[in-house]
Amino acid sequence: MNRRDLLKAGALAGAAAAASHLPGLGAIRAARAALPGAVEAGGWRESRNLIFLVLDGTGYEDMAAASLFSRRVLGRPLLLERVLSAGQYGSMDPQSLTAVVTDSAAATSAWATGRRVVNGALSQLPDGRDLTTILQLARDQGRATGLVTSTRMTHATPAGWVARVAARGMEEEIAEQYLAFRPDVLLGGGRGPFEAETRSDGRDLVAEFREAGYDVIHDEEGLEAATGDRLLGLFTDRDLHLPYEVDRRFQNAPSPSLTTMTTKALQHLGDRDGGFVLQVEAGRIDHANHRSDLGAALWDWIAADEALDVILTFMEIQNDTILIVAADHDTGGGAVYGFGPGYRASTPAFETLGGVRASHEWLFREVIVPGVSPENIQDAVQEYLGVMVPDSNAEIMARVVAGERGNREVQRGHPNAHASQPGNTLAKLITISPDGSPDRPNVSFSTSHHTAGLVPVAVLGPSVAPGSLGFLENTEIFHIMCAALGVRFENPGMTEAEALEVAGGGRGA
Amino acid sequence: MNRRDLLKAGALAGAAAAASHLPGLGAIRAARAALPGAVEAGGWRESRNLIFLVLDGTGYEDMAAASLFSRRVLGRPLLLERVLSAGQYGSMDPQSLTAVVTDSAAATSAWATGRRVVNGALSQLPDGRDLTTILQLARDQGRATGLVTSTRMTHATPAGWVARVAARGMEEEIAEQYLAFRPDVLLGGGRGPFEAETRSDGRDLVAEFREAGYDVIHDEEGLEAATGDRLLGLFTDRDLHLPYEVDRRFQNAPSPSLTTMTTKALQHLGDRDGGFVLQVEAGRIDHANHRSDLGAALWDWIAADEALDVILTFMEIQNDTILIVAADHDTGGGAVYGFGPGYRASTPAFETLGGVRASHEWLFREVIVPGVSPENIQDAVQEYLGVMVPDSNAEIMARVVAGERGNREVQRGHPNAHASQPGNTLAKLITISPDGSPDRPNVSFSTSHHTAGLVPVAVLGPSVAPGSLGFLENTEIFHIMCAALGVRFENPGMTEAEALEVAGGGRGA
Repeated sequence: MNRRDLLKAGALAGAAAAASHLPGLGAIRAARAALPGAVEAGGWRESRNLIFLVLDGTGYEDMAAASLFSRRVLGRPLLLERVLSAGQYGSMDPQSLTAVVTDSAAATSAWATGRRVVNGALSQLPDGRDLTTILQLARDQGRATGLVTSTRMTHATPAGWVARVAARGMEEEIAEQYLAFRPDVLLGGGRGPFEAETRSDGRDLVAEFREAGYDVIHDEEGLEAATGDRLLGLFTDRDLHLPYEVDRRFQNAPSPSLTTMTTKALQHLGDRDGGFVLQVEAGRIDHANHRSDLGAALWDWIAADEALDVILTFMEIQNDTILIVAADHDTGGGAVYGFGPGYRASTPAFETLGGVRASHEWLFREVIVPGVSPENIQDAVQEYLGVMVPDSNAEIMARVVAGERGNREVQRGHPNAHASQPGNTLAKLITISPDGSPDRPNVSFSTSHHTAGLVPVAVLGPSVAPGSLGFLENTEIFHIMCAALGVRFENPGMTEAEALEVAGGGRGA
Repeated sequence: MNRRDLLKAGALAGAAAAASHLPGLGAIRAARAALPGAVEAGGWRESRNLIFLVLDGTGYEDMAAASLFSRRVLGRPLLLERVLSAGQYGSMDPQSLTAVVTDSAAATSAWATGRRVVNGALSQLPDGRDLTTILQLARDQGRATGLVTSTRMTHATPAGWVARVAARGMEEEIAEQYLAFRPDVLLGGGRGPFEAETRSDGRDLVAEFREAGYDVIHDEEGLEAATGDRLLGLFTDRDLHLPYEVDRRFQNAPSPSLTTMTTKALQHLGDRDGGFVLQVEAGRIDHANHRSDLGAALWDWIAADEALDVILTFMEIQNDTILIVAADHDTGGGAVYGFGPGYRASTPAFETLGGVRASHEWLFREVIVPGVSPENIQDAVQEYLGVMVPDSNAEIMARVVAGERGNREVQRGHPNAHASQPGNTLAKLITISPDGSPDRPNVSFSTSHHTAGLVPVAVLGPSVAPGSLGFLENTEIFHIMCAALGVRFENPGMTEAEALEVAGGGRGA
């Protein structure tokens, strides 16, 4: 007798006869069948504007840490918590076409086009076919378009909304494709791929953007003053990203904040007749997590939450706007772990993160530099991270900074050597020891790479049908955006097997 | 000019005047205000039956791994993915009353009573006040009650539904409270706290359960044959849990499966006049994750998904049933990470997990025992985990097994010594090295403890109002259950500050 027969037998038979007439059986049967996509379920309608806020390289452990940090250190809950509860909400499977762990290029392509591509590619299939992006569809409808990011402008996540290239590293090509596309707003870092003196072909893209009607801006004052029809803001030199929020806020690293850029973009796009689509990326959470730098990641989370405040204010004014907030993948697998007997000392250990005043990147550029003594390191960590490094750990750190990386005892960042930066090692060295007092953070990262973890997505706005997204593929976001913009479009796609055949053994190391 | 004024100024003023009349402004305003609880939002109605499936000690990285494992190794998607999409879905903040990282006792108390308690306590406030559990409320309504678990019966997660004790370790007391409560079904492991010869007071609780009308069962055959009004199934000796699913399935460890226990419980409870409340716990995912044993955790995930299949079959028959599926906290922070250039080799590395045929616990009890040679270890890992350990790593493992734990070079499990088991070290030693081929798993754990990460919860059934849970506190599950059972009840509670005062410096290490 199989399970179903067992259940049906005897005592349940009577109930069974009556039960099939009860309401709601459909929902349970639906749970057993292939589910329709979020949009096919119906009830969505067109919005005037679409705003997409990206949290790059962050997952549910980070979100818990950000929620705790915001409540316990800043004294208020994350606005994002409420956005998750007020609209539709789900968790996304972030695989790419051929790899269970995605990079940011394949992740942004998935939602920009509705198709998975191989890691490294931007909105282009492995056989070279270009895909049509949602931003292109929106522009063709007459909507204004904008990309705001705290990374350099030609970095993968914003680029995938416009550019179709085989490799995300083709950043000069990406800058050219921006020019050809003519988004109304481009705000980020990295003048390198735009300027004649740094481009390999000597082409002066900045001049060409000016000719195309762009105000080209280099600093916050310029941003505030800009009144042109189109804006190109490039706030850092070469290939530099914008500073981490923690460095902008506490170390006076010069840059407009994500909030300032978002405000300007909304002012600029909000009066367009046909509505607009704007992507805002908090792009450096990912970078902080690659470096095991939870303090910097948390402040960039806060920066995103502050930008979200501006976005919600805008949505109170221009109510016919749909908001999507999503992470593209987790990075680092960082987690706040239980500390002390019964984990009862977890809270004071966590709260030491409130003392962070600089990023690892800033520390290793400005203070903890070759030649530094163990005492210098202790002083710097005390001043900028708010915790005390034990003597022996400060000595290890000094040896790492001096360049001694190969020794396993020295490079304890990750036993399997997933430590690309001295910051990974520093994070391990300042973590609280199991028998210590809770005077250092109880934070540990499992890798310096991306992970396969599910990531959150929330959709809010008057055009959003009531319901729950639940578990979904990252490509479904494209179909949600199509519904929100009132367009019907389907890109061509390839299967994993087809892609592996084209890639020719792309699964090898 | 502040941000709001900036946005309102100029171009947006016209739109603003019109926008406040558009539909949906309420949803956006709601996102900025304190949200009502999931139930206060309305639309819920009473159900006849309530089934609560607990995934203990697992989060979103594990869920991604389980989804990948089920699809790529077993050839089918997780049923849970569909349950997440078919009902309401959210992510829970799993803090306890005084610690940002919860233990299982405080977690189960939160949903069983609607109140947070301190870690270690079961449904009891720090000042000693007992809380009323949802199972008590259901029993008082005339509903049948049941607890099924793959841990020992008196372990924290099932216990919190019935017992009120200051410390989860009071397992003899918990067994007594079970007897006094008289649940209709108790199925799990661990005869120790019930039997005269192992109890400290010599009391023969097994005899007392028999006198109270229970069929007391010790094996799968007994479970199938049992016809009594009440069932007490204790399938292991002493304080033992049921075997891991991977050992039950591939090493013939004797035990009924979670599916068999769930089927019996549903047969037994399904014909009761007043309906029932049943908790089913997949309790050993947590234990596997404490040991960095993702292979064992994945098979216990699969066992839970198979039990879910039985539950959904039951719900097709007795449709007036509400199902809640939830994790209580994450354990281990384990993650599948990106491997190889562009992470393109992540998939074949992950798929090596398909070769796992035994748990770390089983391996270290049965095969990799003191005196074992490095070659023996290589053979055992090849046979039971399906991967090859390099010579040097096998030598390290042999030294760990021989008892050499203090040496940092040897005990590489976690640099900060969060390694309570040789299994933590084994997991590190079999992880793929960065310059190797993808012939070993790309899995890394950040700790051997619990983490603060958000955890999933899904609610499915005809009585569930359409909508989304979004971000919620774990205590809200109690209120959802009250709505599902048609009871109104509020337990007394304490603030974190009040609890810390009672605990007297309970935040120390």
